[in-house]
Amino acid sequence: MGRTSDAKEKILGAARTLIELRGYSALGVAEICKSAGVPKGSFYYFFDTKEALALAVIDDHWADQERTWKRILASEGEPLDRLRRLFEATQAVQRAGQRDCGTVSGCLFGNLTLEMSNQTEAIRGRLQEIFDAQVDMIDAVIVEALARGDVTVADTREAARSVVAQLEGHVLFAKLYNDTQRLGPLWANCLALLGARTEMAGGL
Amino acid sequence: MGRTSDAKEKILGAARTLIELRGYSALGVAEICKSAGVPKGSFYYFFDTKEALALAVIDDHWADQERTWKRILASEGEPLDRLRRLFEATQAVQRAGQRDCGTVSGCLFGNLTLEMSNQTEAIRGRLQEIFDAQVDMIDAVIVEALARGDVTVADTREAARSVVAQLEGHVLFAKLYNDTQRLGPLWANCLALLGARTEMAGGL
Repeated sequence: MGRTSDAKEKILGAARTLIELRGYSALGVAEICKSAGVPKGSFYYFFDTKEALALAVIDDHWADQERTWKRILASEGEPLDRLRRLFEATQAVQRAGQRDCGTVSGCLFGNLTLEMSNQTEAIRGRLQEIFDAQVDMIDAVIVEALARGDVTVADTREAARSVVAQLEGHVLFAKLYNDTQRLGPLWANCLALLGARTEMAGGL
Repeated sequence: MGRTSDAKEKILGAARTLIELRGYSALGVAEICKSAGVPKGSFYYFFDTKEALALAVIDDHWADQERTWKRILASEGEPLDRLRRLFEATQAVQRAGQRDCGTVSGCLFGNLTLEMSNQTEAIRGRLQEIFDAQVDMIDAVIVEALARGDVTVADTREAARSVVAQLEGHVLFAKLYNDTQRLGPLWANCLALLGARTEMAGGL
């Protein structure tokens, strides 16, 4: 049982790395198994299809990321400080990825959105749920900031969507130029999108 | 000669449609030729590799889009009006794409950036040139707007990058949710990112 569970973890880990490096369509099951060091039979013991594996990789990655987001956004401090720390954590993750792989691999969910979302409804649906959850979390922080008069948005949910969209857009360029410095303007832009009080923006 | 040139156009057209629908990696040369209605020999007469075709599709699409961008941004009117018309044109293109294909296909350059840019340096380089050219065009308009006191950015080039990043992020979500309404906040966000004068933002 221990060995079986280990094989599943190996397949998931190898698939996540390969999908981050080369996308989903370019991969074959044989390559994933070879990279994971498990026989092909193991793959089909755990996953009926390559799509089922992709969904498991997405869920696995979101479980990690959601934990990080919740920890940061539920921590001590003013709402905008917590939001700033979330952006700093995102930048740190991209820098670590570049250090490990030699190239900025971007956001797994954004990558799969542009590669896959209009091809499989199961993946589209799962990615929608994840981005909805991200927007929910950012929305809650904006609601807090609004109650304190720190920001001036008319619609907190729309503002949260714009903050996440801006994040995905900058991560796209960090990947294209293989340069995490491209993430530098994230926080100032977030404050501009939220109509943050000038003295808060000035404290950057 | 007429027939040969026609075959090249057919291959490019079919490849562009298929890449927009399903990405690059998922496609094979045989499928592209079948969709174009040309024999496989024609493909290799015009293109040495599938990557060479992808570069030709990118160039072809950019030639079209650059013409549209130049026409709009060099037209009559105040700088921010021209920028607003550019966003409206982008929304119209995405709506037309959804009407024709049943699904929002997003930005071909953004799609290929997230799918391909860390796999082939030739495609990465070409996409960088295109986004640099987009940023140049937006930058020129921001410089004009700044000279008139319509916006208050400290660094016009960085502001232009943020405007394009924001555009790509919103197009990503329009694709994921197959909903062009997701592009609705583009213009208000652009004004916020540019620190536009309140009376201009209020005129929305």
